[in-house]
Amino acid sequence: MSKIAVIMGSKSDLPVMQEAIDILKHFKLEVEVDIVSAHRTPEKLYEFSKNAHKNGISVIIAGAGGAAHLPGMVAAMSPLPVIGVPVKSSNSIDGWDSVLSILQMPGGVPVATVALNGAKNAGILAAQILGSSDPNVQKSIIAYKESMKAKVLEASKELNHR
Amino acid sequence: MSKIAVIMGSKSDLPVMQEAIDILKHFKLEVEVDIVSAHRTPEKLYEFSKNAHKNGISVIIAGAGGAAHLPGMVAAMSPLPVIGVPVKSSNSIDGWDSVLSILQMPGGVPVATVALNGAKNAGILAAQILGSSDPNVQKSIIAYKESMKAKVLEASKELNHR
Amino acid sequence: MSKIAVIMGSKSDLPVMQEAIDILKHFKLEVEVDIVSAHRTPEKLYEFSKNAHKNGISVIIAGAGGAAHLPGMVAAMSPLPVIGVPVKSSNSIDGWDSVLSILQMPGGVPVATVALNGAKNAGILAAQILGSSDPNVQKSIIAYKESMKAKVLEASKELNHR
Amino acid sequence: MSKIAVIMGSKSDLPVMQEAIDILKHFKLEVEVDIVSAHRTPEKLYEFSKNAHKNGISVIIAGAGGAAHLPGMVAAMSPLPVIGVPVKSSNSIDGWDSVLSILQMPGGVPVATVALNGAKNAGILAAQILGSSDPNVQKSIIAYKESMKAKVLEASKELNHR
Amino acid sequence: MSKIAVIMGSKSDLPVMQEAIDILKHFKLEVEVDIVSAHRTPEKLYEFSKNAHKNGISVIIAGAGGAAHLPGMVAAMSPLPVIGVPVKSSNSIDGWDSVLSILQMPGGVPVATVALNGAKNAGILAAQILGSSDPNVQKSIIAYKESMKAKVLEASKELNHR
Amino acid sequence: MSKIAVIMGSKSDLPVMQEAIDILKHFKLEVEVDIVSAHRTPEKLYEFSKNAHKNGISVIIAGAGGAAHLPGMVAAMSPLPVIGVPVKSSNSIDGWDSVLSILQMPGGVPVATVALNGAKNAGILAAQILGSSDPNVQKSIIAYKESMKAKVLEASKELNHR
Amino acid sequence: MSKIAVIMGSKSDLPVMQEAIDILKHFKLEVEVDIVSAHRTPEKLYEFSKNAHKNGISVIIAGAGGAAHLPGMVAAMSPLPVIGVPVKSSNSIDGWDSVLSILQMPGGVPVATVALNGAKNAGILAAQILGSSDPNVQKSIIAYKESMKAKVLEASKELNHR
Amino acid sequence: MSKIAVIMGSKSDLPVMQEAIDILKHFKLEVEVDIVSAHRTPEKLYEFSKNAHKNGISVIIAGAGGAAHLPGMVAAMSPLPVIGVPVKSSNSIDGWDSVLSILQMPGGVPVATVALNGAKNAGILAAQILGSSDPNVQKSIIAYKESMKAKVLEASKELNHR
Repeated sequence: MSKIAVIMGSKSDLPVMQEAIDILKHFKLEVEVDIVSAHRTPEKLYEFSKNAHKNGISVIIAGAGGAAHLPGMVAAMSPLPVIGVPVKSSNSIDGWDSVLSILQMPGGVPVATVALNGAKNAGILAAQILGSSDPNVQKSIIAYKESMKAKVLEASKELNHR
Repeated sequence: MSKIAVIMGSKSDLPVMQEAIDILKHFKLEVEVDIVSAHRTPEKLYEFSKNAHKNGISVIIAGAGGAAHLPGMVAAMSPLPVIGVPVKSSNSIDGWDSVLSILQMPGGVPVATVALNGAKNAGILAAQILGSSDPNVQKSIIAYKESMKAKVLEASKELNHR
Repeated sequence: MSKIAVIMGSKSDLPVMQEAIDILKHFKLEVEVDIVSAHRTPEKLYEFSKNAHKNGISVIIAGAGGAAHLPGMVAAMSPLPVIGVPVKSSNSIDGWDSVLSILQMPGGVPVATVALNGAKNAGILAAQILGSSDPNVQKSIIAYKESMKAKVLEASKELNHR
Repeated sequence: MSKIAVIMGSKSDLPVMQEAIDILKHFKLEVEVDIVSAHRTPEKLYEFSKNAHKNGISVIIAGAGGAAHLPGMVAAMSPLPVIGVPVKSSNSIDGWDSVLSILQMPGGVPVATVALNGAKNAGILAAQILGSSDPNVQKSIIAYKESMKAKVLEASKELNHR
Repeated sequence: MSKIAVIMGSKSDLPVMQEAIDILKHFKLEVEVDIVSAHRTPEKLYEFSKNAHKNGISVIIAGAGGAAHLPGMVAAMSPLPVIGVPVKSSNSIDGWDSVLSILQMPGGVPVATVALNGAKNAGILAAQILGSSDPNVQKSIIAYKESMKAKVLEASKELNHR
Repeated sequence: MSKIAVIMGSKSDLPVMQEAIDILKHFKLEVEVDIVSAHRTPEKLYEFSKNAHKNGISVIIAGAGGAAHLPGMVAAMSPLPVIGVPVKSSNSIDGWDSVLSILQMPGGVPVATVALNGAKNAGILAAQILGSSDPNVQKSIIAYKESMKAKVLEASKELNHR
Repeated sequence: MSKIAVIMGSKSDLPVMQEAIDILKHFKLEVEVDIVSAHRTPEKLYEFSKNAHKNGISVIIAGAGGAAHLPGMVAAMSPLPVIGVPVKSSNSIDGWDSVLSILQMPGGVPVATVALNGAKNAGILAAQILGSSDPNVQKSIIAYKESMKAKVLEASKELNHR
Repeated sequence: MSKIAVIMGSKSDLPVMQEAIDILKHFKLEVEVDIVSAHRTPEKLYEFSKNAHKNGISVIIAGAGGAAHLPGMVAAMSPLPVIGVPVKSSNSIDGWDSVLSILQMPGGVPVATVALNGAKNAGILAAQILGSSDPNVQKSIIAYKESMKAKVLEASKELNHR
């Protein structure tokens, strides 16, 4: 079965990135979690990125803050789709640095960027990617969308009965 | 075989979006191109989004400028992975509106956003998504990366011989 | 009598949007409140927008945060004037995403945008719109402006007697 | 019959504001055009704003650039709905000053702001406001939306036949 | 003797503007304080601005937040130098709206803008303006600069003895 | 008679700063022009700033671009009012660097900042400062305002006769 | 032995700048600390900058906030490499003013700028500069990098054992 | 003798980076130039960064645009001081992405960032770094500063004789 790797640049990114892990588990997908720092463990970055597709991984989710080079550098070395999560870390200027250094990749090396701190959406996107070739996962996505709709309709009903 | 849909909000987005079409053809992938305006053809938006996954489409690339609602609205209605291309249209404030209205999607409805005018990368990302379950496409991605590397090394050689 | 619809993308927008409801009630105007999520209940969005003008509604106030597509999508499908309230939601980048994705609509589909979190002003604007054809409502607006003036003059008096 | 006033802070704003005039004429609405500078003709600003609603005007469209005070000052003195058009004038910092000094009005004094240089949308919004109490104008709006849709569908057809 | 007027758009601006009042009193200059709201008391704005120079006032300090029109509108109607203080009010987008709507005045109508919340500097600048024709005030400015220098040198000494 | 100094950080700022010189000459005020670079001629900066008020100068206008330190450093060393003109130089990031490094001075050392490239307004502001103690100059300011008004009214007349 | 000077514009910058001092002490380098305010002690700025390279100093680290002129003015007068630390002071607009007024120096006068509040990195950079000619310091840098790597690998291990 | 490496992410960065090469040659320093793309030649990036300090290089200047990862990744792997030049490439959003993704490095891995397109200053900074341990280079820096001053004084003289 396909695995999804969730990596982050620092232990301090875990509270944000946990949302990706949780939603992937909700979809019953296999997840591998690790800390890979582009700036402090460049060799590990190299090893991880070069080999992920050989190790049964289908999609990589990478989160980082500030001058966030992790998602882009993984994308430079892996043929897999890489989803980037800009993290609003303590050293970030309102998140703009994280967003721009992940989003604005040069031609040839895409990173699928989600919203600032949008780790949950990164997880859903990874599931959608698997779902594009796996009908069972796609069914789970459709069910998830239905459950979101139901919650909004419920909130609407409550609002009109207060 | 899997198809990739490339849609855009206006005919004026075509010069930017053509780069997605070209690179997908380079990868010999099947492409379907259309204009779907979230604001001017909302019914077509609904039809397209609700049915894309039933019509043999695996990945949707959607480009739009200004208050760009097309990618997010497609993502609201389709279980497929949606790649958003922020287009720096003539009415855009330096591209910030296009970028933020595609990137900053709420929890539950991701859009895989690429760089401003980054349609080429949208195409490569779509290929990587197919490649995550299709080894032949993944091989093409690996070869593409090798060809980019070769071009840079060639440029480096020329630089040092001038 | 004309009704004003106040809709919002999420229950969490209610504390902000309540100010619109309150000022409309102050003007003794009829208000209809609902949650309509562009991204999670697109069918309801469609139903609401297509039919509002047939259901006795004259003006629509729509509030949303982040990549805020609700006001623009309602405006795409309704002939009524749509007032957009950019909400500074928890996932917003300082409100810029909400503001730009509501304000920067393409030619043909206007949204009357008010200040970030400016729901009170959205309510007053809706009253002004009704007042442009209803002399009684216009009188209330004039009286409201007088009361604001009186409060400032009172504050000025207090300041000069401290 | 209701009249719409289109005013602007400077003669140099006319090329942008002409689009509002043109679309209003398309809808066969009566338009009154003038230059009213908040900073250079403050007395005229006072006269105009205090009396517009007594002179048969129903909606005011005001365009200005840079530190754009015209729309907000008219809104301070008129009970009518005021639509503000941020103009990207030569002295503007990428349009941000125009946008923010029109949009960010304090509680009590709304300005219905449209996109940067969005004079056409200001005209359509004014028509929608009249249309909220005049069924004939509303019909024109609905027809206009249909014509926009037809143009997009035509462009889509052409694209798929090239 | 010359008087300096310190006006503000709202009672809520007083905590910021008090610093201007305090430093002017430190320089033993005569100060007149009032609330003048451009948007809620436009007639008072008109009266104040047209007559300030006839009422013994030499310099006007005006503070306001959000879409801050007070300083610019006073400058439109008074021949006196007007100092604008952008206030970071609760409805402001990080202060940018206040700064830009005060700073970016069109050619012909300057506002001497100081830093965000920089009311103290507004007071010093007003004193410098009086000092440019009054040697006694200029001496106070020079003494004030010396006292600032002494405080920094003292802090430096302490730092090197900790 | 009082003199006004117009200084700039580089010869390349002259086309912008010329507008200050021109308007001051229009007001028949005495002007002294020089290039003083904070970064390339720091000794001259010291000499100029320390002595300007002893050399018959009443107001200093200083223009600079990029990381613009000239106005603030002059203000640090002179008791005179210093007007800063942010210049949008070729190395500037859309003018934001020039604006912020002139405007955001710390408490104690104000710079009277005008709009980006607003040298004309700097000249008018200098005249207003002189006018606050010189009735003849103030009369010229009032006349200038009248002439601006007349031009707008003329443009309004033309617009309504086309 | 080479000394590194750590200066700052205000005592209030010390909590941020202390991180530079601490890391330099970690590398056993000689540090000299002082408060030098560009705006309040310009003579001391002059003295310090003109003579630093004659007083055994090899690298200067200068931190300041808001319109931060200290690093650039030191760089104007010293031939030494100057490292600038933009401090997010209380009067700063989200740090943008500090960053831009340090970073955007004109051609001829560089400041080596580090991240907002990045005093620790300023210290490491100073050590790297000494290390470029002193093999012992370079060895310490290499060891420091190894210790950072070890911490990340440790965190990674913990994460995978929770 | 010490060498300075000037590397860039793409051949298209050469026109900007040439200014660094030219000024280094002006200082008669040895320069090594190459293209090293973080995203397209990651192996070369590793080789270069790991070995630069062993190959006689003392300072590295790295220029890149958009999501510019080159300077930071070199800094991650080399103990040498790394100077980053944000290049305003064609795909950049007004240069903000280049600036922030180079400047905002996390604690432990500094990049000495210069102004947008500030390659000349990068060259001067590299010379200053060599000069901090080499009196001859420092003398050249001092002479360079004198020549800049002379040019400004000359321009000042011309201005006053026109």
